[in-house]
Order: sequence, then C-alpha cells, then structure tokens
Amino acid sequence: MRGEFELIAKYFAPLAEAAPGAQGLRNDAALFDPTGDDSLVLTLDAMVSGVHFLPGDPPETIGRKLLRVNLSDLAAMGARPRGYLLAAAFPKDIDEAWIAAFAAGLAEDQARFGVALYGGDTVSTPGPLTLTLTAFGEALGDRALSRATARAGDLVYVSGTIGDGLLGLEALRGGLPDLAETHRTYLAARYRLPEPRLELGRRLAEAGLASAALDVSDGLAADLSHIAGESGLASEIEAGAVPLSPAARTVVEAAPERLAGLLGGGDDYELLFTVSPSRAGEVAALARELDLPLTKIGQMAVGQGLRVRDSAGREMALEGTGWRHF
Amino acid sequence: MRGEFELIAKYFAPLAEAAPGAQGLRNDAALFDPTGDDSLVLTLDAMVSGVHFLPGDPPETIGRKLLRVNLSDLAAMGARPRGYLLAAAFPKDIDEAWIAAFAAGLAEDQARFGVALYGGDTVSTPGPLTLTLTAFGEALGDRALSRATARAGDLVYVSGTIGDGLLGLEALRGGLPDLAETHRTYLAARYRLPEPRLELGRRLAEAGLASAALDVSDGLAADLSHIAGESGLASEIEAGAVPLSPAARTVVEAAPERLAGLLGGGDDYELLFTVSPSRAGEVAALARELDLPLTKIGQMAVGQGLRVRDSAGREMALEGTGWRHF
Repeated sequence: MRGEFELIAKYFAPLAEAAPGAQGLRNDAALFDPTGDDSLVLTLDAMVSGVHFLPGDPPETIGRKLLRVNLSDLAAMGARPRGYLLAAAFPKDIDEAWIAAFAAGLAEDQARFGVALYGGDTVSTPGPLTLTLTAFGEALGDRALSRATARAGDLVYVSGTIGDGLLGLEALRGGLPDLAETHRTYLAARYRLPEPRLELGRRLAEAGLASAALDVSDGLAADLSHIAGESGLASEIEAGAVPLSPAARTVVEAAPERLAGLLGGGDDYELLFTVSPSRAGEVAALARELDLPLTKIGQMAVGQGLRVRDSAGREMALEGTGWRHF
Repeated sequence: MRGEFELIAKYFAPLAEAAPGAQGLRNDAALFDPTGDDSLVLTLDAMVSGVHFLPGDPPETIGRKLLRVNLSDLAAMGARPRGYLLAAAFPKDIDEAWIAAFAAGLAEDQARFGVALYGGDTVSTPGPLTLTLTAFGEALGDRALSRATARAGDLVYVSGTIGDGLLGLEALRGGLPDLAETHRTYLAARYRLPEPRLELGRRLAEAGLASAALDVSDGLAADLSHIAGESGLASEIEAGAVPLSPAARTVVEAAPERLAGLLGGGDDYELLFTVSPSRAGEVAALARELDLPLTKIGQMAVGQGLRVRDSAGREMALEGTGWRHF
C-alpha cells in the first residue's frame, strides 16, 4: 500500500479542495476566517471499530456516520456547519480499497452538508480502526442553543422518530428475524446514516423558539434527563406519544414490553427540545415547512428526575439510561 | 472504575473551567468567540500507544506531549493558541490513577501555554490507548506563516537543537548505554516534552520575518524537503552547521556516522524557517531577545531536491527521509 503522504494526497486532499484555508492539507495547520460576528462552534467525536460500528460495515457509511454524528452536535446548538478535521488510525493491513470507499463516502456527505476537510492526521495502529472527527461551524453567540436553559412548564418535543438506531443495530446483528425486509433495510439505514437535523436546529435558534435543545445520542430518556438535570428541573414524558417509525411500531406491536428499551436506546440523532406552550403553534408551522415530524412528548416541571407514563397514566420503569463505555 | 460521565466530570471538566464557551463540557459542542479580525487556525494530531509513545511512559507527559505537538503546529503558523478538544479512547482495564495523572499533566501545560479544554469525547477501545487532540488558535490571516512561500536565495534557519527527540527515544528504549546519565535524562525530557516555539512563531509572523516556516516533526531533512517542494525550490544545508545539544554532540563525536541519522530523525518540534539574507540581522537580534538559538544551516535555491554537504563540502547521503506509518 501507499505511504501516508501518498494516501493523504490521493484520498484526503481532494476533500479539502473547497477549503482554501486547508492549503491542500500540506501545511501544519489550516486557516479559517469566521463570518462577521458569529461565534465559532466546535465539537469532536471518536469512533472505534467494534465499539461504535461493526467491523464489516460498509466503509462508505462509516465516515459518513462519523461526520453526521458531529454535524448533529452542531445542529443541537443551532450552528451552521463549515468544516471538519479528521484523524484516522488505520491498522497496518488495511486495504487501500477500504480507504478509497471511506473517502468517497465523506466526499458525498461533505457536498450534501456544505462542509470541507480542513486538516487531519493519518497514523497506523496495532489495534482496531479508530476515527476521530472535529467539526466546526458558526452560530450567533447569544442565540446558540443550550441544554441547560429549559423552563418549568415548557413542552418537550422530539424530531423524526425514536428507537430506529437501536433496532437498526439489532437488525444488522441478525436480530429481529421476523421483521419484513423493507423494515430491516429501513432500520439499518437509520443506524448507519443518521440525519443531522441542521435546518431544524438553525431555525429553532434563529427564531429563539427552543428554550433548550440537544441531540438524542445517549437515548431519549438519558438525554431528556440531561436537559432536566442541567436546567435544574424535572421532566415527564408520555411513552405513547413518542414517535415511532412504521418499522419500530411493528416491533412494539408484536412485543409491547420493548417500548421502554427504545426510549433508553441511543444513536437516534434526532433533536430533543423544549418550547414555551405559548409557541406550540410555531412548532407545528415549522414542522410543516420542513416536512419533518416535530412531536410533543411531554413537559418540564419544577423538581428533578424523569418520569415516563404509559398510555394508562402509570409510571413505567426504564432499563438503564443510555449507553456507557465504562 | 467510574463511568465516562463521572470520569469527565472529575478529571476533564476542571480543564474546561477557563473556557466559558465549553460550558463545563456538558453541552453538545463548545462556543468560541474569535478576537476581532483574526483568522482561526486549526490543527489535529493523533497518538497511539506503542506507535507514538511507549506504553510505560509517564501518563503526565503523554498528554502534555500531545498538546505540545499540536501547539507546535500552531507555532509553525505564527498563531496564538486559544484552546483544544481531546478524544481519548481508553482500554477498558485502564487504571483511574493513570487518567488522573494524564489530566494533571494537561492541567499543568494548559496553564503554561494559556489554553483550555473546549470539548472532548471519552470512549472505550479493545485496542491500545489512542488520543487525538485538536488545537485551535488565532493568527492574522495575511501574516500566517506557510511552508510554501520560500524564495530562492533565502537563508534556512532552525531554532534550538536537532536530533534530541530521536536520541531521547533511543535512550528510553535502553540504547546509548555509554552516554552519561545527565545526557540521557536531558534527551529523554526532550523526547517526552518538546517545547513548542510559540513566541518565536508569533514574532516571525508579526514581523513578516520568515518567508516560510514549519515545525520539524518528520525530521529536519524531510521537513526542509517539504518547504523546498511546496515552494518549488531546491535547498542545501551544511551538516556541520546543524545545531546539536551537548548530549547529541557527545553521541556524534563518538560516532560521526550518526550525524546523517539525526538529520533524518523526527520529533524535534523546532521551527525551521527561511529568511531573506537582508534580514539576517533581525534574526540574530530576535535570537538574543528570546534567548533561543536560531542557527543558519543553509539556503534555498532555484531547482529542486535537498542537498546536504559535510564540513569538507562533500555531498552526504541521508538514510530515509523521516518517519512513515505505512
């Protein structure tokens, strides 16, 4: 295989073409000129083969998911994405075709989301493939969304559908054998290629519509607990109101006890946000305009902790509270 | 051991205290407000245990070296460092005391260099400890240093001394048994804790003194070849002029054939820069002011390639041209 300088020149430098400040990845660091008075927003996520993705996952989608997971963090702040830096620790025996497909996936998504590669580091590892991506964007500083600013009485909304990430991973691991193939394909795609809700985040921030927001990465229950805890409040959701895809609904109809697990599962990358009840109409209008379901699932209250009620109003017990590495 | 949320709260959140935009590492992304019209400068480097550092290295110095290596990239652009983001992939069996010492080292260096932690990701890995750090700073856009802008006739300078990183690694691996203990200790410290030449880089940029610059990470020969190649020029250095520390000089005096290897070895993190001959006096004055040796080792010329001459004027053959991962 080529050395790392040749790998960078062949596969990664083309990803930097739209970023003049990246100087073809040939300098020590990249320059970026912020626009006007916007604040810079920075985030970073790492993915390890066998922990965050399956070793056999298509290389095209691994890079795209890593980029999207980071863009989802920018979406949760209401930021416009501008660029990213990538560190790749490749096993020495990695196939060059793998790297080519990985880079092709990144090329596709960076065009889609309007970002470019600003820098990187390509190293070898005796361990599993490990990828770290830093994304940056811009947000109006005083309008950036935060998870710590919900108010008692605010309504809790979530975009899209919840639980598909968890079920997608399960389907890819050979689970859910009775599920129709179209459902399995849908769920796998949701796990592999989450959709960062950038336009939604931007609109929520620009209009000052969301009092708090984050993206659902640890799981709906854990992430709502984050909003509640950081805001010094309690939260309550109605499990039956949580939006499910047709595929997830099929799973829950066959096994109703699985619903609690879906509320605890991560990898959804939908936006979870709180809104003053007086502005519920604006949320409905925004949902129509973006053609994206924005579903009211509960509310914030004085106190602490998270309560989940089933359709009969009984409190549900949740399994765990999101993925933990240690 | 604690879960990652507790690890972050206990060991990493304190590193973010000086960065209000990091919001205690509890948000999805961090905010940073650039100063005035400065350009943002971004860089990223990854380190893998067993590849970039020795598994038995003191945890205090591993984090500090990673930070310094990135700060060295900012120095090479003439940027003022402002903050960093850190991804840590820890083996599941890592000792909490290791993490505590690692964070303590970062705390020491971030105070020293005036930066703060803006964000991070803590994950588990079945492989070796893998660390990725993104550093960012600010530079006046049109004065940022570049490796691609040397001119024919420019003099080539290097800061500090060359070859200590390579010899330090060798000493730590049990090599150089005949060398005095003070020399071995000095070399090990240079390998473990390189000194980012931030003040030098800033001054070279502000005064427009360097026509091109980079930091010596791949090795003096390889890095001068980068300046020459990117600038479309040839370069020539006199091996006898390359500044050596007393420890390195002792090694070369005992084994003169080792000099070529030191010019090819990496991990020096000194600044290599080119200057118009008419401004040599300013370089000498800056060296005195900073109390840092800035040594003229050669010059740039029309053509291509790197030539190294020994003290008799004969062309020397170099072994390899810097570290390669693949």
